[in-house]
Amino acid sequence: MKNFLIVGHKAVTETFSLNDLPGAAGRMDILCRCINAALFLSHDLRRDVCVFIVLKGEPSSPKIVRFDGSMVRYLSPDERSCASLIKKALEKKAQDFWTESTAGVSVRKGDMEAIIKELEMKITYLREDGEDIRAKIFEGYSNRLFVLGDHLGLTEVEEKMISECEHETISVGPLSLHADHCIVLLHNEMDRGKHI
Amino acid sequence: MKNFLIVGHKAVTETFSLNDLPGAAGRMDILCRCINAALFLSHDLRRDVCVFIVLKGEPSSPKIVRFDGSMVRYLSPDERSCASLIKKALEKKAQDFWTESTAGVSVRKGDMEAIIKELEMKITYLREDGEDIRAKIFEGYSNRLFVLGDHLGLTEVEEKMISECEHETISVGPLSLHADHCIVLLHNEMDRGKHI
Repeated sequence: MKNFLIVGHKAVTETFSLNDLPGAAGRMDILCRCINAALFLSHDLRRDVCVFIVLKGEPSSPKIVRFDGSMVRYLSPDERSCASLIKKALEKKAQDFWTESTAGVSVRKGDMEAIIKELEMKITYLREDGEDIRAKIFEGYSNRLFVLGDHLGLTEVEEKMISECEHETISVGPLSLHADHCIVLLHNEMDRGKHI
Repeated sequence: MKNFLIVGHKAVTETFSLNDLPGAAGRMDILCRCINAALFLSHDLRRDVCVFIVLKGEPSSPKIVRFDGSMVRYLSPDERSCASLIKKALEKKAQDFWTESTAGVSVRKGDMEAIIKELEMKITYLREDGEDIRAKIFEGYSNRLFVLGDHLGLTEVEEKMISECEHETISVGPLSLHADHCIVLLHNEMDRGKHI
Protein backbone atom coordinates (compact mmCIF):
# COMPACT_ATOMS: atom_id res chain seq x y z
CA MET A 1 0.00 0.00 0.00
CA LYS A 2 0.98 3.61 -0.61
CA ASN A 3 0.08 5.55 2.51
CA PHE A 4 -0.64 9.27 2.76
CA LEU A 5 -0.94 11.15 6.04
CA ILE A 6 -2.22 14.71 6.12
CA VAL A 7 -2.41 16.78 9.28
CA GLY A 8 -5.41 19.11 9.67
CA HIS A 9 -4.41 21.41 12.52
CA LYS A 10 -7.79 23.10 12.80
CA ALA A 11 -10.05 20.27 11.59
CA VAL A 12 -12.85 19.70 14.10
CA THR A 13 -13.11 16.42 15.97
CA GLU A 14 -16.86 16.15 16.36
CA THR A 15 -19.79 16.29 13.97
CA PHE A 16 -19.99 19.36 11.73
CA SER A 17 -22.14 21.04 9.08
CA LEU A 18 -21.49 20.02 5.49
CA ASN A 19 -22.33 23.59 4.44
CA ASP A 20 -19.24 25.25 5.91
CA LEU A 21 -16.22 22.99 5.52
CA PRO A 22 -13.59 25.78 5.38
CA GLY A 23 -14.98 27.79 8.33
CA ALA A 24 -16.84 26.00 11.12
CA ALA A 25 -15.33 22.60 10.23
CA GLY A 26 -11.76 23.98 10.42
CA ARG A 27 -10.50 23.72 6.81
CA MET A 28 -11.99 20.26 6.44
CA ASP A 29 -12.16 21.10 2.70
CA ILE A 30 -8.36 20.72 2.48
CA LEU A 31 -8.51 17.19 3.87
CA CYS A 32 -11.37 16.26 1.53
CA ARG A 33 -9.39 17.39 -1.50
CA CYS A 34 -6.38 15.41 -0.31
CA ILE A 35 -8.51 12.26 -0.02
CA ASN A 36 -9.81 12.87 -3.54
CA ALA A 37 -6.31 13.37 -4.94
CA ALA A 38 -4.98 10.27 -3.20
CA LEU A 39 -7.80 7.88 -4.12
CA PHE A 40 -9.38 8.85 -7.43
CA LEU A 41 -8.56 7.80 -10.96
CA SER A 42 -10.92 8.60 -13.81
CA HIS A 43 -13.91 6.26 -13.30
CA ASP A 44 -11.92 4.18 -10.81
CA LEU A 45 -10.27 4.20 -7.39
CA ARG A 46 -6.64 3.61 -6.49
CA ARG A 47 -7.13 0.41 -4.52
CA ASP A 48 -3.49 0.31 -3.39
CA VAL A 49 -3.75 3.57 -1.42
CA CYS A 50 -4.56 4.27 2.21
CA VAL A 51 -5.14 7.84 3.46
CA PHE A 52 -4.88 8.93 7.09
CA ILE A 53 -6.15 12.36 8.09
CA VAL A 54 -5.11 13.61 11.52
CA LEU A 55 -7.68 16.00 13.00
CA LYS A 56 -6.27 18.36 15.60
CA GLY A 57 -9.10 20.86 16.11
CA GLU A 58 -11.70 21.25 18.86
CA PRO A 59 -13.18 19.70 20.93
CA SER A 60 -11.65 16.23 21.36
CA SER A 61 -8.35 16.31 19.49
CA PRO A 62 -6.47 14.38 18.24
CA LYS A 63 -8.37 11.86 16.13
CA ILE A 64 -7.41 9.98 12.99
CA VAL A 65 -9.75 8.97 10.18
CA ARG A 66 -8.52 6.33 7.74
CA PHE A 67 -9.76 5.85 4.15
CA ASP A 68 -8.65 2.44 2.87
CA GLY A 69 -8.77 2.44 -0.94
CA SER A 70 -9.04 -1.34 -1.08
CA MET A 71 -12.29 -1.31 0.91
CA VAL A 72 -13.88 2.11 0.63
CA ARG A 73 -17.45 2.51 -0.66
CA TYR A 74 -19.97 5.35 -0.99
CA LEU A 75 -17.19 7.84 -1.84
CA SER A 76 -17.71 10.28 -4.71
CA PRO A 77 -15.10 12.80 -5.85
CA ASP A 78 -16.86 15.92 -4.55
CA GLU A 79 -15.78 17.49 -1.25
CA ARG A 80 -19.22 17.17 0.30
CA SER A 81 -19.39 13.40 -0.31
CA CYS A 82 -16.01 12.93 1.28
CA ALA A 83 -16.88 15.21 4.19
CA SER A 84 -20.07 13.26 4.86
CA LEU A 85 -17.99 10.09 5.37
CA ILE A 86 -15.61 11.95 7.70
CA LYS A 87 -18.61 13.26 9.59
CA LYS A 88 -20.01 9.75 10.01
CA ALA A 89 -16.62 8.61 11.31
CA LEU A 90 -16.55 11.44 13.87
CA GLU A 91 -20.00 10.45 15.09
CA LYS A 92 -18.56 7.08 16.21
CA LYS A 93 -16.88 6.78 19.59
CA ALA A 94 -13.14 7.06 18.95
CA GLN A 95 -10.99 4.67 20.95
CA ASP A 96 -7.35 3.55 21.01
CA PHE A 97 -8.06 1.12 18.17
CA TRP A 98 -9.79 1.43 14.79
CA THR A 99 -13.60 1.47 14.61
CA GLU A 100 -15.17 1.20 11.16
CA SER A 101 -17.86 3.80 10.49
CA THR A 102 -18.70 3.02 6.84
CA ALA A 103 -17.13 0.52 4.43
CA GLY A 104 -13.39 1.25 4.26
CA VAL A 105 -13.55 4.27 6.59
CA SER A 106 -12.42 3.99 10.22
CA VAL A 107 -11.69 6.27 13.15
CA ARG A 108 -9.47 6.14 16.22
CA LYS A 109 -7.99 8.40 18.87
CA GLY A 110 -4.40 9.39 18.25
CA ASP A 111 -1.88 11.65 16.63
CA MET A 112 0.55 11.25 13.73
CA GLU A 113 2.81 9.25 16.04
CA ALA A 114 0.25 6.44 16.29
CA ILE A 115 0.33 5.93 12.51
CA ILE A 116 4.11 6.11 12.31
CA LYS A 117 4.30 3.37 14.96
CA GLU A 118 1.54 1.28 13.38
CA LEU A 119 3.00 1.29 9.87
CA GLU A 120 6.73 1.19 10.68
CA MET A 121 7.57 2.42 7.18
CA LYS A 122 10.10 4.84 5.80
CA ILE A 123 8.63 8.34 5.71
CA THR A 124 8.67 10.63 2.70
CA TYR A 125 7.98 14.14 3.95
CA LEU A 126 6.76 16.72 1.41
CA ARG A 127 8.26 20.14 1.99
CA GLU A 128 9.00 23.05 -0.33
CA ASP A 129 12.73 22.94 0.33
CA GLY A 130 13.08 19.16 -0.09
CA GLU A 131 15.01 17.41 -2.82
CA ASP A 132 13.28 17.60 -6.20
CA ILE A 133 11.23 14.48 -6.86
CA ARG A 134 12.64 14.26 -10.40
CA ALA A 135 16.20 14.15 -9.15
CA LYS A 136 15.39 10.76 -7.62
CA ILE A 137 14.67 7.35 -9.02
CA PHE A 138 11.07 7.16 -7.95
CA GLU A 139 10.36 3.46 -7.65
CA GLY A 140 9.52 0.99 -4.94
CA TYR A 141 7.25 3.41 -3.15
CA SER A 142 4.59 0.86 -2.41
CA ASN A 143 5.61 0.59 1.23
CA ARG A 144 6.03 4.21 2.12
CA LEU A 145 4.29 6.76 4.30
CA PHE A 146 3.97 10.15 2.61
CA VAL A 147 3.43 12.98 5.12
CA LEU A 148 1.96 16.37 4.18
CA GLY A 149 0.86 19.41 6.15
CA ASP A 150 -2.26 21.50 5.61
CA HIS A 151 -2.27 25.28 5.01
CA LEU A 152 -0.24 25.67 8.22
CA GLY A 153 2.47 23.14 7.30
CA LEU A 154 3.74 20.92 10.12
CA THR A 155 4.60 22.14 13.61
CA GLU A 156 8.12 21.87 15.05
CA VAL A 157 6.99 18.99 17.25
CA GLU A 158 5.61 17.11 14.23
CA GLU A 159 8.77 17.73 12.23
CA LYS A 160 10.87 16.44 15.14
CA MET A 161 8.74 13.29 15.18
CA ILE A 162 9.60 12.71 11.51
CA SER A 163 13.28 13.52 11.97
CA GLU A 164 13.54 10.71 14.54
CA CYS A 165 12.38 8.13 11.99
CA GLU A 166 13.98 6.87 8.78
CA HIS A 167 12.89 9.53 6.35
CA GLU A 168 13.62 11.70 3.33
CA THR A 169 12.36 15.18 2.48
CA ILE A 170 11.27 15.88 -1.08
CA SER A 171 9.51 18.59 -3.07
CA VAL A 172 7.38 18.29 -6.17
CA GLY A 173 8.30 21.43 -8.07
CA PRO A 174 9.57 25.00 -7.96
CA LEU A 175 6.41 26.62 -6.55
CA SER A 176 4.59 26.23 -3.25
CA LEU A 177 1.41 24.20 -3.84
CA HIS A 178 -1.65 22.97 -1.98
CA ALA A 179 -1.27 19.54 -0.36
CA ASP A 180 -3.78 17.88 -2.74
CA HIS A 181 -1.90 19.17 -5.78
CA CYS A 182 1.30 17.70 -4.31
CA ILE A 183 -0.40 14.32 -3.98
CA VAL A 184 -1.43 14.39 -7.66
CA LEU A 185 2.19 15.05 -8.62
CA LEU A 186 3.49 12.28 -6.34
CA HIS A 187 1.09 9.78 -7.85
CA ASN A 188 2.09 10.76 -11.38
CA GLU A 189 5.73 10.17 -10.57
CA MET A 190 4.91 6.74 -9.12
CA ASP A 191 2.61 5.88 -12.04
CA ARG A 192 5.44 6.66 -14.43
CA GLY A 193 7.96 4.65 -12.43
CA LYS A 194 5.70 1.64 -12.68
CA HIS A 195 4.50 1.92 -16.24
CA ILE A 196 7.27 3.42 -18.34
CA MET B 1 -2.06 34.25 -20.27
CA LYS B 2 -2.38 30.49 -19.99
CA ASN B 3 -5.94 29.59 -20.88
CA PHE B 4 -7.85 26.50 -19.81
CA LEU B 5 -11.20 25.47 -21.28
CA ILE B 6 -13.23 22.68 -19.69
CA VAL B 7 -16.49 21.43 -21.15
CA GLY B 8 -19.23 20.46 -18.66
CA HIS B 9 -21.71 18.51 -20.78
CA LYS B 10 -24.34 18.22 -18.05
CA ALA B 11 -23.60 21.41 -16.10
CA VAL B 12 -26.80 23.39 -15.60
CA THR B 13 -27.19 26.83 -17.14
CA GLU B 14 -29.40 28.50 -14.57
CA THR B 15 -29.18 28.97 -10.82
CA PHE B 16 -28.67 25.83 -8.74
CA SER B 17 -28.40 24.61 -5.14
CA LEU B 18 -24.93 24.66 -3.60
CA ASN B 19 -25.86 21.52 -1.66
CA ASP B 20 -25.95 19.15 -4.65
CA LEU B 21 -23.22 20.06 -7.12
CA PRO B 22 -22.73 16.54 -8.54
CA GLY B 23 -26.42 15.73 -8.95
CA ALA B 24 -28.91 18.54 -9.57
CA ALA B 25 -26.21 20.95 -10.79
CA GLY B 26 -24.94 18.43 -13.38
CA ARG B 27 -21.43 17.57 -12.17
CA MET B 28 -20.68 21.20 -11.40
CA ASP B 29 -18.21 19.81 -8.82
CA ILE B 30 -15.88 18.75 -11.66
CA LEU B 31 -15.76 22.29 -13.04
CA CYS B 32 -15.15 23.76 -9.57
CA ARG B 33 -12.20 21.46 -9.01
CA CYS B 34 -10.78 22.40 -12.41
CA ILE B 35 -10.99 26.09 -11.53
CA ASN B 36 -9.22 25.38 -8.24
CA ALA B 37 -6.46 23.41 -9.96
CA ALA B 38 -5.97 26.08 -12.62
CA LEU B 39 -5.90 29.11 -10.31
CA PHE B 40 -4.55 28.20 -6.88
CA LEU B 41 -1.05 28.22 -5.52
CA SER B 42 -0.41 27.85 -1.82
CA HIS B 43 -1.53 31.16 -0.26
CA ASP B 44 -1.64 32.78 -3.70
CA LEU B 45 -3.40 32.78 -7.08
CA ARG B 46 -1.94 32.19 -10.52
CA ARG B 47 -2.55 35.64 -11.94
CA ASP B 48 -1.45 34.62 -15.44
CA VAL B 49 -4.26 32.08 -15.88
CA CYS B 50 -7.73 32.38 -17.36
CA VAL B 51 -10.27 29.56 -17.05
CA PHE B 52 -13.30 29.11 -19.30
CA ILE B 53 -15.99 26.62 -18.33
CA VAL B 54 -18.51 25.72 -21.02
CA LEU B 55 -21.87 24.73 -19.54
CA LYS B 56 -23.97 22.53 -21.80
CA GLY B 57 -26.76 21.35 -19.51
CA GLU B 58 -30.40 22.41 -19.16
CA PRO B 59 -32.22 24.76 -19.57
CA SER B 60 -30.46 27.46 -21.63
CA SER B 61 -27.30 25.84 -22.98
CA PRO B 62 -24.64 26.70 -23.99
CA LYS B 63 -23.14 29.31 -21.70
CA ILE B 64 -19.55 30.13 -20.82
CA VAL B 65 -18.28 31.38 -17.47
CA ARG B 66 -14.80 32.91 -17.38
CA PHE B 67 -12.54 33.17 -14.29
CA ASP B 68 -9.74 35.66 -14.97
CA GLY B 69 -6.89 35.01 -12.53
CA SER B 70 -5.57 38.55 -12.92
CA MET B 71 -8.83 40.06 -11.64
CA VAL B 72 -10.70 37.44 -9.63
CA ARG B 73 -11.74 38.13 -6.04
CA TYR B 74 -13.85 36.38 -3.39
CA LEU B 75 -12.63 32.95 -4.56
CA SER B 76 -11.60 30.39 -1.94
CA PRO B 77 -10.24 26.94 -2.79
CA ASP B 78 -13.30 24.95 -1.69
CA GLU B 79 -15.82 23.72 -4.26
CA ARG B 80 -18.71 25.53 -2.66
CA SER B 81 -16.98 28.93 -2.82
CA CYS B 82 -16.23 28.44 -6.48
CA ALA B 83 -19.74 27.17 -7.19
CA SER B 84 -21.26 30.23 -5.52
CA LEU B 85 -19.40 32.48 -7.99
CA ILE B 86 -20.58 30.33 -10.92
CA LYS B 87 -24.12 30.55 -9.56
CA LYS B 88 -23.91 34.36 -9.37
CA ALA B 89 -22.68 34.40 -12.98
CA LEU B 90 -25.63 32.26 -14.10
CA GLU B 91 -28.04 34.62 -12.39
CA LYS B 92 -26.92 37.38 -14.79
CA LYS B 93 -28.51 37.66 -18.24
CA ALA B 94 -26.11 35.95 -20.65
CA GLN B 95 -25.63 37.73 -23.97
CA ASP B 96 -23.33 37.44 -26.98
CA PHE B 97 -20.66 39.41 -25.12
CA TRP B 98 -19.11 39.14 -21.65
CA THR B 99 -21.01 40.44 -18.61
CA GLU B 100 -19.11 40.62 -15.33
CA SER B 101 -20.97 39.10 -12.39
CA THR B 102 -18.34 39.46 -9.63
CA ALA B 103 -14.75 40.75 -9.78
CA GLY B 104 -12.92 38.71 -12.41
CA VAL B 105 -15.86 36.41 -13.19
CA SER B 106 -17.94 36.91 -16.35
CA VAL B 107 -20.61 35.10 -18.32
CA ARG B 108 -21.74 34.96 -21.94
CA LYS B 109 -23.79 32.83 -24.30
CA GLY B 110 -21.76 30.55 -26.50
CA ASP B 111 -19.99 27.26 -27.00
CA MET B 112 -16.33 26.24 -27.14
CA GLU B 113 -16.17 27.65 -30.66
CA ALA B 114 -16.72 31.20 -29.37
CA ILE B 115 -13.60 30.96 -27.19
CA ILE B 116 -11.50 29.39 -29.91
CA LYS B 117 -12.44 32.30 -32.19
CA GLU B 118 -11.95 34.93 -29.49
CA LEU B 119 -8.49 33.76 -28.43
CA GLU B 120 -7.09 32.64 -31.80
CA MET B 121 -4.41 30.59 -30.06
CA LYS B 122 -2.87 27.22 -30.72
CA ILE B 123 -4.85 24.53 -28.89
CA THR B 124 -3.35 21.87 -26.67
CA TYR B 125 -5.93 19.13 -26.28
CA LEU B 126 -5.56 16.77 -23.32
CA ARG B 127 -6.43 13.20 -24.21
CA GLU B 128 -5.32 9.85 -22.82
CA ASP B 129 -3.80 8.72 -26.13
CA GLY B 130 -1.94 11.98 -26.79
CA GLU B 131 1.82 12.40 -26.89
CA ASP B 132 3.42 12.24 -23.44
CA ILE B 133 3.96 15.70 -22.02
CA ARG B 134 7.50 14.76 -20.95
CA ALA B 135 8.46 13.81 -24.48
CA LYS B 136 8.08 17.47 -25.43
CA ILE B 137 9.98 20.61 -24.63
CA PHE B 138 7.33 22.26 -22.56
CA GLU B 139 8.04 25.97 -22.85
CA GLY B 140 6.44 29.03 -24.30
CA TYR B 141 2.98 27.96 -23.28
CA SER B 142 1.90 31.38 -22.15
CA ASN B 143 -0.24 31.90 -25.23
CA ARG B 144 -1.99 28.60 -25.45
CA LEU B 145 -5.51 27.29 -24.99
CA PHE B 146 -5.61 24.00 -23.09
CA VAL B 147 -8.83 22.06 -23.71
CA LEU B 148 -10.12 19.31 -21.41
CA GLY B 149 -13.31 17.29 -21.25
CA ASP B 150 -15.32 16.40 -18.15
CA HIS B 151 -16.23 12.85 -17.08
CA LEU B 152 -17.76 12.34 -20.56
CA GLY B 153 -14.71 13.50 -22.50
CA LEU B 154 -15.37 15.57 -25.62
CA THR B 155 -18.01 14.78 -28.22
CA GLU B 156 -17.16 14.00 -31.85
CA VAL B 157 -18.39 17.45 -32.87
CA GLU B 158 -16.15 19.13 -30.29
CA GLU B 159 -13.15 17.05 -31.35
CA LYS B 160 -13.80 17.99 -34.99
CA MET B 161 -13.82 21.65 -33.97
CA ILE B 162 -10.34 21.21 -32.46
CA SER B 163 -9.03 19.23 -35.41
CA GLU B 164 -9.86 22.14 -37.70
CA CYS B 165 -7.56 24.49 -35.70
CA GLU B 166 -3.83 24.49 -35.17
CA HIS B 167 -3.48 22.00 -32.35
CA GLU B 168 -1.56 19.23 -30.65
CA THR B 169 -2.84 16.34 -28.54
CA ILE B 170 -0.96 15.46 -25.37
CA SER B 171 -1.35 13.26 -22.32
CA VAL B 172 0.00 13.74 -18.81
CA GLY B 173 0.81 10.20 -17.78
CA PRO B 174 0.13 6.49 -18.17
CA LEU B 175 -3.23 6.39 -16.33
CA SER B 176 -6.59 8.00 -17.05
CA LEU B 177 -7.11 10.90 -14.62
CA HIS B 178 -9.71 13.47 -13.65
CA ALA B 179 -9.51 16.77 -15.54
CA ASP B 180 -8.44 18.76 -12.46
CA HIS B 181 -5.58 16.35 -11.78
CA CYS B 182 -4.46 16.80 -15.41
CA ILE B 183 -4.40 20.58 -14.91
CA VAL B 184 -2.15 20.21 -11.84
CA LEU B 185 0.28 18.12 -13.90
CA LEU B 186 0.22 20.61 -16.79
CA HIS B 187 1.01 23.49 -14.47
CA ASN B 188 3.88 21.59 -12.88
CA GLU B 189 5.42 20.98 -16.29
CA MET B 190 5.10 24.67 -17.17
CA ASP B 191 6.42 25.76 -13.76
CA ARG B 192 9.48 23.59 -14.32
CA GLY B 193 10.00 24.91 -17.83
CA LYS B 194 10.05 28.41 -16.46
CA HIS B 195 12.08 27.95 -13.30
CA ILE B 196 14.64 25.22 -13.85
